[in-house]
Amino acid sequence: MEMTQKIAIGKLAMLVATLTDEELEIFSEQLKDVEYCQGKSGSMSMQKVISAVETSAKRNHLISDKLYRETHALYHAILEALEGVMRGQIVAGDMMRTVGLRFAIVRGSPYEEFDEGEWLAVAFYGTIGAPVKGLEHEAFGLGINHIG
Amino acid sequence: MEMTQKIAIGKLAMLVATLTDEELEIFSEQLKDVEYCQGKSGSMSMQKVISAVETSAKRNHLISDKLYRETHALYHAILEALEGVMRGQIVAGDMMRTVGLRFAIVRGSPYEEFDEGEWLAVAFYGTIGAPVKGLEHEAFGLGINHIG
Amino acid sequence: MEMTQKIAIGKLAMLVATLTDEELEIFSEQLKDVEYCQGKSGSMSMQKVISAVETSAKRNHLISDKLYRETHALYHAILEALEGVMRGQIVAGDMMRTVGLRFAIVRGSPYEEFDEGEWLAVAFYGTIGAPVKGLEHEAFGLGINHIG
Amino acid sequence: MEMTQKIAIGKLAMLVATLTDEELEIFSEQLKDVEYCQGKSGSMSMQKVISAVETSAKRNHLISDKLYRETHALYHAILEALEGVMRGQIVAGDMMRTVGLRFAIVRGSPYEEFDEGEWLAVAFYGTIGAPVKGLEHEAFGLGINHIG
Amino acid sequence: MEMTQKIAIGKLAMLVATLTDEELEIFSEQLKDVEYCQGKSGSMSMQKVISAVETSAKRNHLISDKLYRETHALYHAILEALEGVMRGQIVAGDMMRTVGLRFAIVRGSPYEEFDEGEWLAVAFYGTIGAPVKGLEHEAFGLGINHIG
Amino acid sequence: MEMTQKIAIGKLAMLVATLTDEELEIFSEQLKDVEYCQGKSGSMSMQKVISAVETSAKRNHLISDKLYRETHALYHAILEALEGVMRGQIVAGDMMRTVGLRFAIVRGSPYEEFDEGEWLAVAFYGTIGAPVKGLEHEAFGLGINHIG
Repeated sequence: MEMTQKIAIGKLAMLVATLTDEELEIFSEQLKDVEYCQGKSGSMSMQKVISAVETSAKRNHLISDKLYRETHALYHAILEALEGVMRGQIVAGDMMRTVGLRFAIVRGSPYEEFDEGEWLAVAFYGTIGAPVKGLEHEAFGLGINHIG
Repeated sequence: MEMTQKIAIGKLAMLVATLTDEELEIFSEQLKDVEYCQGKSGSMSMQKVISAVETSAKRNHLISDKLYRETHALYHAILEALEGVMRGQIVAGDMMRTVGLRFAIVRGSPYEEFDEGEWLAVAFYGTIGAPVKGLEHEAFGLGINHIG
Repeated sequence: MEMTQKIAIGKLAMLVATLTDEELEIFSEQLKDVEYCQGKSGSMSMQKVISAVETSAKRNHLISDKLYRETHALYHAILEALEGVMRGQIVAGDMMRTVGLRFAIVRGSPYEEFDEGEWLAVAFYGTIGAPVKGLEHEAFGLGINHIG
Repeated sequence: MEMTQKIAIGKLAMLVATLTDEELEIFSEQLKDVEYCQGKSGSMSMQKVISAVETSAKRNHLISDKLYRETHALYHAILEALEGVMRGQIVAGDMMRTVGLRFAIVRGSPYEEFDEGEWLAVAFYGTIGAPVKGLEHEAFGLGINHIG
Repeated sequence: MEMTQKIAIGKLAMLVATLTDEELEIFSEQLKDVEYCQGKSGSMSMQKVISAVETSAKRNHLISDKLYRETHALYHAILEALEGVMRGQIVAGDMMRTVGLRFAIVRGSPYEEFDEGEWLAVAFYGTIGAPVKGLEHEAFGLGINHIG
Repeated sequence: MEMTQKIAIGKLAMLVATLTDEELEIFSEQLKDVEYCQGKSGSMSMQKVISAVETSAKRNHLISDKLYRETHALYHAILEALEGVMRGQIVAGDMMRTVGLRFAIVRGSPYEEFDEGEWLAVAFYGTIGAPVKGLEHEAFGLGINHIG
């Protein structure tokens, strides 16, 4: 049972969420191996962030809008990514606000074995802080789940 | 009180923790603006991971080994980064094991204003899973704190 | 997109984990619609509990021991069930001990739509408390995940 | 100090919250040993769920509406049960919605020793998911506390 | 249902855990209204801290060693107090060490109404940090529960 | 690297948050070594509590309103203190309400070594419970952070 991860979907999601278009150029070859999309969410309401990611994933056909199991897989990947963004803080929307949170969704087959099938990676990158511009610092989160 | 972040220390920490030496080359110009180091920790014992990062930070003079306040700043940046790695799971060492967790520590002055001083970013990137090779997926974490 | 859950795999997992053999008899008809197994774990070491459930699931062919994605699906269902057992308490093995924790794993197709495929339910039922017999009360947890 | 639990109030609360009236019939003999009531709450606002359980408990005289200590005992049993329903997820009302969450409250004397007195069990059973019918799966939680 | 707290058992527990004997003198009159004891625990193993408090509570007859319900009440008051000491950090013994953690247990009747009966307060005060003397700062926690 | 804490800023913050003016008199000598202020917040909305503490700290010049790093230091001290007030409960504003939460902010130099610089302590003391007067008990929290 020796497997290796041939495609690092988490790393790719991180790069798509974090880099400028120009910087991302260098990774364009690696990105051909996966399906991905990106988007933005300027709110710290959990519902709006989750909703923005789900809508983007469905509109870009990264998950099927016909199947609950794909929404379920995405939802838990989003929650795991948000844990990184929030870093264990008690309540989110109630205590922080963010400007310019970018997200990336990557779908691919990270493992050599065909039967390991497809997996999802969700990454967030942005700034978190008070509503005054500048009173903020960077935050990041990554979630991974099996899908399909 | 208009500030902007001129240097994204969190993004740089992520890149140092994640990219290959070759890929990191492209960001060498940006990395000149900060002090940084990197390391590895192959264990999922929290104490060992924290200890590896602290030792690396002191040996590379990213924090002073004479001042508790710098250890305190680093410690909380590490804890925040580990929240992303663990994604809210109940207990760590007791439930997961990782192979090849890399970390990066970046110290720099992200803000235009001189008085905002120095900040620390700690990033982890690696795989988490069962102790059998392959039974694992990627994980990531980023923590930021003021220092100095 | 109107779906209804035709088989309540969570409820069945609860019943298998909780009822006596005699009481379970009444639900034998419903249990024909799913695959399931049960087991016991007398420890409060997270690793041992997780390990006991995983071993039982593989030995009873509820998940494939060839595929990481099935282990991954089971693992997160176990973690979710353990949250119910522990009820948010800070650390588990360090603070509690249990006698007679029973578990049930159920695999089935809860949804009418064929494409929703198979899902897993993991339930724990037992007593939690001090190591002295009687210094304990009941605890329960249920986790659900998509699989296959 | 050898005690055994003669009445499993947690198990009874689970059955009352989960079974149909017809299925519950079989346990009617066991239910004579305890006081219990049941109810529903169709919202995922924590305040509304807690409020529904408290109101039901008081109206059915399972706790005294004159004593804070009984409200306090019930409140913590509810919180523990909600941990199982939410499974460690960061924020509740902000991220999930449920349809048809049923609850049961059981008050009884689980221990042989007279002086161990009365205890409360609170159980929730229902479905959690997106507001679209079908985009949901089962969830369960159980909380236990001493009272009286 | 207008009640007021006539005795602040939590405040008294805080003072007993925090003040020097000399400073505590001034509150000796208020302390006559409650039963209390104090102790120390120099470890950050959760089990040892909990065990030290439980042993002290039983030896000083603040709770009965014959009744599980009193141990249960104390146990949850201890857990709540430890939340304050740990401030949401992921795992305790695995990441911190403390020197000179003092605790206080107070049992009394905080409410005017006779039927509200007795309650417990548990307070911790000490320093938390690295095992090197001085690499540490203060920490505090308070837990309250009904009992008797 | 032998250090000792010469000023217990956490203990002083606790006393300022908890004691009556008369009781606090006895500690007036110790309070000369630090800067401090106190205030009240009658709400359990996290945003309002945090906002009240921040406003008080800035108005009393305990932190600079020009520097994000000082707001950042205070913010995390507040969050840590709130962990003690909430004791791990899932969501705050959604489940509890408080009357008469008092807070204290203390800024000082706890360590002998000049270079350890200034630190902040934030303490909360109050009652938590249902919105009906009396249906409540005491709660406490303390957070400490380096600053300056």
